[in-house]
Amino acid sequence: MSGYRVAVVGATGLVGQEIIRCLEQRKFPCSSLRLFTADRSASREPLLPQREPAVEGLSNSAFDEADLVFFAAGMDVARQFAPLAIKAGAVVVDSSPAWRIDPDVPLIVPEVNTAEVRAHKGLVAGPESTVVALTMALYPLHRVNPLKQVVVCTYESVSGAGRAAQEELSAQARLVLEGRTVVPHVFPHQIAFNVLPEVDIFLDNGYSRGEWSLVEETRKVLRAEGLPISATCARVPVYVGHAVAVHAEFSNPIAPEDARKLLVESPGVRVLDDPDVSLYPQPWFASGSDDVLVGRIRRDASNSSALSMWVVIDNLRKGAALNVVQIAEELARQGHIPEGGKRHGQVGTPSDSHGDPVH
Amino acid sequence: MSGYRVAVVGATGLVGQEIIRCLEQRKFPCSSLRLFTADRSASREPLLPQREPAVEGLSNSAFDEADLVFFAAGMDVARQFAPLAIKAGAVVVDSSPAWRIDPDVPLIVPEVNTAEVRAHKGLVAGPESTVVALTMALYPLHRVNPLKQVVVCTYESVSGAGRAAQEELSAQARLVLEGRTVVPHVFPHQIAFNVLPEVDIFLDNGYSRGEWSLVEETRKVLRAEGLPISATCARVPVYVGHAVAVHAEFSNPIAPEDARKLLVESPGVRVLDDPDVSLYPQPWFASGSDDVLVGRIRRDASNSSALSMWVVIDNLRKGAALNVVQIAEELARQGHIPEGGKRHGQVGTPSDSHGDPVH
Repeated sequence: MSGYRVAVVGATGLVGQEIIRCLEQRKFPCSSLRLFTADRSASREPLLPQREPAVEGLSNSAFDEADLVFFAAGMDVARQFAPLAIKAGAVVVDSSPAWRIDPDVPLIVPEVNTAEVRAHKGLVAGPESTVVALTMALYPLHRVNPLKQVVVCTYESVSGAGRAAQEELSAQARLVLEGRTVVPHVFPHQIAFNVLPEVDIFLDNGYSRGEWSLVEETRKVLRAEGLPISATCARVPVYVGHAVAVHAEFSNPIAPEDARKLLVESPGVRVLDDPDVSLYPQPWFASGSDDVLVGRIRRDASNSSALSMWVVIDNLRKGAALNVVQIAEELARQGHIPEGGKRHGQVGTPSDSHGDPVH
Repeated sequence: MSGYRVAVVGATGLVGQEIIRCLEQRKFPCSSLRLFTADRSASREPLLPQREPAVEGLSNSAFDEADLVFFAAGMDVARQFAPLAIKAGAVVVDSSPAWRIDPDVPLIVPEVNTAEVRAHKGLVAGPESTVVALTMALYPLHRVNPLKQVVVCTYESVSGAGRAAQEELSAQARLVLEGRTVVPHVFPHQIAFNVLPEVDIFLDNGYSRGEWSLVEETRKVLRAEGLPISATCARVPVYVGHAVAVHAEFSNPIAPEDARKLLVESPGVRVLDDPDVSLYPQPWFASGSDDVLVGRIRRDASNSSALSMWVVIDNLRKGAALNVVQIAEELARQGHIPEGGKRHGQVGTPSDSHGDPVH
């Protein structure tokens, strides 16, 4: 039996379920698959009945038999358990914000900076879904015409806040349509038929963590330390799919048609751009898409070196699950995942330090 | 009997109804009120039963007895009938885009450039509601620290597209909640649980008319010819209330606390800005507000001369109806409205040319 002993932590959540789906659809070589949840109360019907193993609770020895562990749980769960998985010899791919900005942890969007995975020390992180969208739309242009400034506004779906947020949107929408009063639970205010400029907690600098992550993670993925980025992140009453309005200034003049050509040729990017027939990316229709969708590519009328674009991503899929599965595929391709129980008996195989990246 | 003979064109529409409400609430001195619609099929239950006159169809002689005519109909109706009203001796206040950019037509946000009404030639225009929001939030800062660059993204409610758009949002939301398929009518695509980066038609430069109006009208209201403004306008599934994410760079450094102080002191602006307790403007709660609501005032972390803000406006009220009623109040205060049938008999009264502003 060949393949890796894979574990998914947070297997009952929206991103965890999507990771399982991606592993299956992309035929990731799993010799075994174990599913964990930090929240037993959240357990769900299995996604793949008959074939999907039961979901287990987390324990300190959960990863003793794992080669590769996906973390799709919250930041606290990743902080507590990922070091144990790494110590047990597994490679961890984390979709939480726990170590994204840690200089010892590669932050990877495979189409942008895949080569950097090789610097991992047992842990690789996937960025915020808005950052996947933004970097995939900007990198093909930035590599030939370096960015000078980026201003970005997001229109983020509730699924970024989990399944309960999706259920809250439906419940609130029904109440509003019946003319009844809404009492919010997951979000601080009503989200149905409303917009909230609050994505994650607020920081001392006045940014929300969603906004600040977008700034810091985009700089890290693009290796553009100090790039001026301004961001406003807002939650809109949409189930799945984040939209990002991008206003980007480059070092040199850039024509929309040239940008369009570069983007059409970029793997993982799909250009949907014909406003005359109302063709542009939309969250509702992006759900399930593996591609980052780009449209409304237009010259900034005040600046020939600037462009505006409208970018949409399935935040659960390419924005999170698919991206971390692609990272695992790249780790496997580069021989960075110790395979199926062989590691304990072998001496002298080249391996990374697997040290604890937390410090 | 004192007061003006007032007419409202487009009286059955969302903005027309709100104009009638504002005239009533603000006790605008009307000696008579006539209501017109260009679309008889759209007639509605009267807003003020018993007191509200019947809605009449438009005709070439409709304005023979009017001193002041509000146009709250489409651009085509304003283009066809406003010149007739002006020729008949009335002053026209138009909320449509028909003449907003015409250099002979003052484009007024009373809190920003009220003095300019006096240059009218029978017609004064109110701007796009997003422009009212943007200019009221920026002008108090711009007047002491001139703007260098503005990037703005909008989150616009469906009411900007009329009552049918609101009904479509409800109908589509019900279908989605029942798991049924949506067929769009008013908008080119489903708007329920979706976001559309299309506000009005698309122009040859790749901007939508919503975006281009925002650029041109903001420059005109702020008297900031050539100010670089980039805009993305998007429609979100919200009934009433537009949100505008503003990223503004000024000529000199500006501290968020100073900006907040200037905005708190500005008439017509209400600052709602305490992120720690999730206090910020929201469209759902802005409905019915006379004020432009400003929050999330924060320094741009990459530029000490730049600020970000989150601005919300009731697009039907201060964004349209209240703004044009305030314009009429100012015209009355300055003696620019010929009062109650006196004009025909009087000779030598100072008056404006009342010429046709269309050319």
